Amino acid sequence: MKKILNNPSGVVLEMMEGIANENKDVAIDKESQTLYKKNINKNKVSLISGGGSGHEPAHAGFIGKGMLDAAVCGEVFTSPTPDMIQGGMEKIASDKGTLLVVKNYSGDVMNFEVAKMLAEAEGQEVEMVIVNDDVAVEDSTYTTGRRGIAGTIFVHKVAGAAAERGADLGEVKRIAEKVIANTRTMGMSLGHCITPESGTPSFILKEDEMEVGLGIHGEPGIKKETVKPSKEIVKELLDYILKDIDYKDSKVALLVNGLGGTPIMELYVANKDAFDYLKEQGIEIAWNKVGNYMTSLEMPGMSLTLMKLDDELESLLNDEANAKGWN
Amino acid sequence: MKKILNNPSGVVLEMMEGIANENKDVAIDKESQTLYKKNINKNKVSLISGGGSGHEPAHAGFIGKGMLDAAVCGEVFTSPTPDMIQGGMEKIASDKGTLLVVKNYSGDVMNFEVAKMLAEAEGQEVEMVIVNDDVAVEDSTYTTGRRGIAGTIFVHKVAGAAAERGADLGEVKRIAEKVIANTRTMGMSLGHCITPESGTPSFILKEDEMEVGLGIHGEPGIKKETVKPSKEIVKELLDYILKDIDYKDSKVALLVNGLGGTPIMELYVANKDAFDYLKEQGIEIAWNKVGNYMTSLEMPGMSLTLMKLDDELESLLNDEANAKGWN
Repeated sequence: MKKILNNPSGVVLEMMEGIANENKDVAIDKESQTLYKKNINKNKVSLISGGGSGHEPAHAGFIGKGMLDAAVCGEVFTSPTPDMIQGGMEKIASDKGTLLVVKNYSGDVMNFEVAKMLAEAEGQEVEMVIVNDDVAVEDSTYTTGRRGIAGTIFVHKVAGAAAERGADLGEVKRIAEKVIANTRTMGMSLGHCITPESGTPSFILKEDEMEVGLGIHGEPGIKKETVKPSKEIVKELLDYILKDIDYKDSKVALLVNGLGGTPIMELYVANKDAFDYLKEQGIEIAWNKVGNYMTSLEMPGMSLTLMKLDDELESLLNDEANAKGWN
Repeated sequence: MKKILNNPSGVVLEMMEGIANENKDVAIDKESQTLYKKNINKNKVSLISGGGSGHEPAHAGFIGKGMLDAAVCGEVFTSPTPDMIQGGMEKIASDKGTLLVVKNYSGDVMNFEVAKMLAEAEGQEVEMVIVNDDVAVEDSTYTTGRRGIAGTIFVHKVAGAAAERGADLGEVKRIAEKVIANTRTMGMSLGHCITPESGTPSFILKEDEMEVGLGIHGEPGIKKETVKPSKEIVKELLDYILKDIDYKDSKVALLVNGLGGTPIMELYVANKDAFDYLKEQGIEIAWNKVGNYMTSLEMPGMSLTLMKLDDELESLLNDEANAKGWN
């Protein structure tokens, strides 16, 4: 294992300091391993997300105007504890309440649930949504039901915009659930990633193999296949998504997300292929971003996310946001 | 070699289409392999850069308000020809003239020089600056003098801001040269990258080795070393830079740039270490960004760039810019 790091067990706090050095609008609470907006607007619903680290810029990179107010940074690929989550929630408590945005992994869901109960017991108004956009597998290594992956970023953005416009907690939750109902993701990988503490690959692929439908912690996917041209990879991923929701004659948002180790050049090739294929299917891409949004450390690969748009979702998606990772 | 691509020899045009799909403000001129702003302001000095592809988001990702007007996309790691560059320049011709921003590689410098002469012969007013921020080596594989690497982004940003404010061509060139005079970069890598057409690694490192001072095309650096903690890597890179210009008691801008395959988590660890070390040296970091700005395909590694700031540079650096890669 070769990495730019000091002490594997201290990597998350060091990373958080590096983030706070760059972004002067955020502060660190070391005890809860939370990065949070310094200026909390108490008249806006607060949004907080988090989970295991190693998915940067998710989630701390999405703290900013029109997106998140805080991110709890668990150890690499490890859920933060309920105490940490509750500690983070305290930093951004708002008179209008707090929405928790949680990716569907058993550990995260359980710990955020407990944190929600603890915060409610102290009088906070809290709602929670669980993102489960991954169409690859039901009931995976770490999950009951579908996993939450890159589509989570759409929840941050769209629900964050609703909160910024002044919506109340129930309304922000309704919007977040609407995003979740309309968002699907499918990923593939050309290789593994290595966590700093383990020092060993999450899985091993042969020289000509790719993994289809894997998770963002290197969990297994649906199958291994021989690497094929981008056009065919893109078609395969999109077909899984299109089978799941009828996007026909709809407007969609398309997110081409790099897993951390894929050249940006390749993501744009895939983006072209996705445009071409969706056009053939009579689907209009009304919104598009390409880049590293929800990564798995240095994993080479990508995921494609489609969100079916109506006027409300499209309008909120296009609201101004000001967060480092939202570019 | 495992990559997300279709035809290795068509990868640049496919990438360009993917970029234009995402960014509705840019158009493609296929003949010159140039991406350019659709709405050119003829009363603003135009800025154009380019070079070999494979360094995304450089340079096409920096097209936008307050930065570039166009980027000529050569084949991977290969300079665009004079005809291509001249073709791109025609797309953004302005009444106030054009500045060419060129990284110091022999092929690029020669081809941009010829393009400049061709454009001048047709009556265009053109100036050119050559970025040579890399302190690692004098006279490298592809260069006479020092190479141009991540510091080029500061030229795009600061000279682009001057142009946006309405400065004339001479003034924009003066600012660009001031950036170059005050900017230094040093990089390291933990591994190779593979170009789509060659299919083979640029160089091979042992399991515990890193390359210090390498170039963004995988050219050799100063030396190979055993991998060491981030703090020590950062100190070594910064010491090369600090030896070259006296930054003591100055304000600086610090860019921590990923080479494409390094986890964002690791870049932030290095950012923390750079803050700590520069503070010890009495240097104030007045501006900071961390991310992938000037990459080498999927290479794992990073470069650190310092720009010494005065009020003029700092003010221009902080002007609003609106380009995908500038986040």
